[in-house]
Amino acid sequence: MLPFPSLISSTQLTPEIIDSIFKVTDDMADQIETSGRIELLDDKVVALLFFEPSSRTMMSFQSAAQRLKAGMVFAQNASSTSFEKGESLEDLIRMVESYSDIIVMRHAQPGSAAIAAETSKVPFINAGDGGNEHPTQSLIDAYTIFKEKGRLDNLKIMFGFDSLQSRSIHSLTKLLSQYENNHFTFTGPGELMPSQTMLDELTSNGVTCELEAEVKLHDGYDVAYVNRLQQERFEDPALFEENRLKYRLLKADIEGSECAILDPLPRIDEIATEVDDLPNAVYFKQASYGVPVRMALLAMLLGKA
Amino acid sequence: MLPFPSLISSTQLTPEIIDSIFKVTDDMADQIETSGRIELLDDKVVALLFFEPSSRTMMSFQSAAQRLKAGMVFAQNASSTSFEKGESLEDLIRMVESYSDIIVMRHAQPGSAAIAAETSKVPFINAGDGGNEHPTQSLIDAYTIFKEKGRLDNLKIMFGFDSLQSRSIHSLTKLLSQYENNHFTFTGPGELMPSQTMLDELTSNGVTCELEAEVKLHDGYDVAYVNRLQQERFEDPALFEENRLKYRLLKADIEGSECAILDPLPRIDEIATEVDDLPNAVYFKQASYGVPVRMALLAMLLGKA
Amino acid sequence: MLPFPSLISSTQLTPEIIDSIFKVTDDMADQIETSGRIELLDDKVVALLFFEPSSRTMMSFQSAAQRLKAGMVFAQNASSTSFEKGESLEDLIRMVESYSDIIVMRHAQPGSAAIAAETSKVPFINAGDGGNEHPTQSLIDAYTIFKEKGRLDNLKIMFGFDSLQSRSIHSLTKLLSQYENNHFTFTGPGELMPSQTMLDELTSNGVTCELEAEVKLHDGYDVAYVNRLQQERFEDPALFEENRLKYRLLKADIEGSECAILDPLPRIDEIATEVDDLPNAVYFKQASYGVPVRMALLAMLLGKA
Repeated sequence: MLPFPSLISSTQLTPEIIDSIFKVTDDMADQIETSGRIELLDDKVVALLFFEPSSRTMMSFQSAAQRLKAGMVFAQNASSTSFEKGESLEDLIRMVESYSDIIVMRHAQPGSAAIAAETSKVPFINAGDGGNEHPTQSLIDAYTIFKEKGRLDNLKIMFGFDSLQSRSIHSLTKLLSQYENNHFTFTGPGELMPSQTMLDELTSNGVTCELEAEVKLHDGYDVAYVNRLQQERFEDPALFEENRLKYRLLKADIEGSECAILDPLPRIDEIATEVDDLPNAVYFKQASYGVPVRMALLAMLLGKA
Repeated sequence: MLPFPSLISSTQLTPEIIDSIFKVTDDMADQIETSGRIELLDDKVVALLFFEPSSRTMMSFQSAAQRLKAGMVFAQNASSTSFEKGESLEDLIRMVESYSDIIVMRHAQPGSAAIAAETSKVPFINAGDGGNEHPTQSLIDAYTIFKEKGRLDNLKIMFGFDSLQSRSIHSLTKLLSQYENNHFTFTGPGELMPSQTMLDELTSNGVTCELEAEVKLHDGYDVAYVNRLQQERFEDPALFEENRLKYRLLKADIEGSECAILDPLPRIDEIATEVDDLPNAVYFKQASYGVPVRMALLAMLLGKA
Repeated sequence: MLPFPSLISSTQLTPEIIDSIFKVTDDMADQIETSGRIELLDDKVVALLFFEPSSRTMMSFQSAAQRLKAGMVFAQNASSTSFEKGESLEDLIRMVESYSDIIVMRHAQPGSAAIAAETSKVPFINAGDGGNEHPTQSLIDAYTIFKEKGRLDNLKIMFGFDSLQSRSIHSLTKLLSQYENNHFTFTGPGELMPSQTMLDELTSNGVTCELEAEVKLHDGYDVAYVNRLQQERFEDPALFEENRLKYRLLKADIEGSECAILDPLPRIDEIATEVDDLPNAVYFKQASYGVPVRMALLAMLLGKA
């Protein structure tokens, strides 16, 4: 059981709650391994409302629902349906809540998740509301670190390469700032470094932060969390090209270190494929944790775990 | 059991048949409440062919199928598939009937449902064929009135605000004209009043009809069934704007009356959100009845209820 | 059980393997008939990745999965998702393999299936990779012939009307060339006759091949396998029109003969609808075999049959 009916923001995730979700996640991962699918939610229907396409999050929620034998309803071609005829989000949620027992929604509009959760009579999960929040991703990221390092405190973590605009980095750093003695090094093109506001907030929560143009992962880093640079963020194509080649993890940067490499994916150029075979490369494992973490959330919000 | 293999038109729905469907619907609503999902159709596969996007009808049929534990197959992106390569509807149905045990279809072409039902070897449900028919919507509307008022006869009903082009109003008025002593008042912009043909048909079936520019719901109305005005129906934007504000139910129009407010949704401007909290506002309840009504139809057409 | 983890090409399908798949297919067809759905794969999740729309293949795989009570995950609107952000096919497969127990993929790129199967840790089925291969279609075609004629050798078969560019004809002729004493007559517009390479390969495998401008099916043909002409293959619209009317099976061409008519569908003009009532017309039966054949493949590749 969780102390809230809906998961909207990673700020709801205290260490105690995270701990309880991780325990259920471990159990779910075991169940996938031993049984493939379990009957836990076979009396429930999950609504998947993806108003923005998102293959990764969508498929991982589908898999979570199917592994729990829940029924699924989903909007076909959500963006081109009657949802666009001017109907309010509140009205839409009042409809969908009567078709399902829990609603998972991705929506382009920041803040839409809070509105939907407030309206809904059934539990609600935010699967990403614009640039605002994506709390299930934070949980997956934190779970991956926990499985690799056995702790969420006393970590030396590198974040790159676009910390400014990454919902994933914003949420994960905030989540980890609740734990003792963490140290974050941000790297990447100068214009994509985290905002001063973000740094101040992390610092005031007790995290040591620094910005570096270059980082040596062999210098005792526990984790590197990287994402791709997006061309559309650069006015000058030549500058994008330069940064694309510069901010790129190679085998030599990692091999022999204790540093676990995470990436919310899709991976474009930020990690060379030669890295994939290193034991440090945990980004595909991280993607796979999406299923048990989301199974845990569905089950807990429905009072079944 | 129903005396026909396929539901194409609301003209198939006699009072006796409606009564039997409502009894099964009550039972399905109870089952959702007590069990969430039941095994009734777990040996069946339902095909959902939505050639026009329709989130509401689509999701409610999905929910009905999933609550009965039926399998589902559906065309991904129906309008952009091989269905458009020039294949006939008959050929398409001959294919889909071999993939499923019952077919639910929405199609833009009036009359397509009759062609499909005629071709299909498996039961067929019309989920809307252009401006022609949408019989499951009529059943949901009638069921809502029955639950609110306990009868389908001796009703004083207001219909607005576009009775001319509304498939829902055409079908529901026709269905209700089978019952004794009903009185319909149509209101809305003059150009969107029902056709003389429609009025003549209703009158010849014994319904008293009148057209009014303005209606007071406190004057003994049992039901108000309203839909939105569609901008594209007005050549003059200013005229649309004027009518949009004029034909709009406010709290004061309704509060204290016995009048149940129905709307096939989506709701745009035709009902102010301040109405939502009144006990008269049954439009979201109406949407929720889509699931048990469609469960009843699926089960009955498959000989399982 | 099959001697390979993934089905990529019809060249994997030896007579012995085909025989074992047909036996399981017969069993699956019986199970559909008697039970509707069976629990065989209810502990498995099937991923359906359709990067090209394909209603027929998609729905038939869905039906196969649902009749076996497998869970399903699928990309909503695959072509417009993050899959297009530049992520490699290998990365995509590494993600989807962690969401499912078997992957079915259709992809526009010839050769993509081999890359995906090579990457995937879970079994993989090629549901069409561009103009390259579509092995499940070949199996369905061969199964249809086997059910109609009781054999895959000693057959006199007409192929038309576009043998040059048809993935189905390429794969089926190759598959059948493994059997003794088959004779193929190709017909159609001169520019759509099979390539010399294809003819040489068939001949070197022992098939007698000939090209004919016109074919009399009453002359002892066992099977006619036809497909539609595609307008876009003709530069001159008048030439298309001429060929469209010329290469078209009529009732008189077939009635009274022993020739079974197959078509991978959709059927446009290549078979007149007056043919549909003849016992020779087996193309809809052929479409229906898609379900048990694909059930057999899913079950066998998952070690369950």
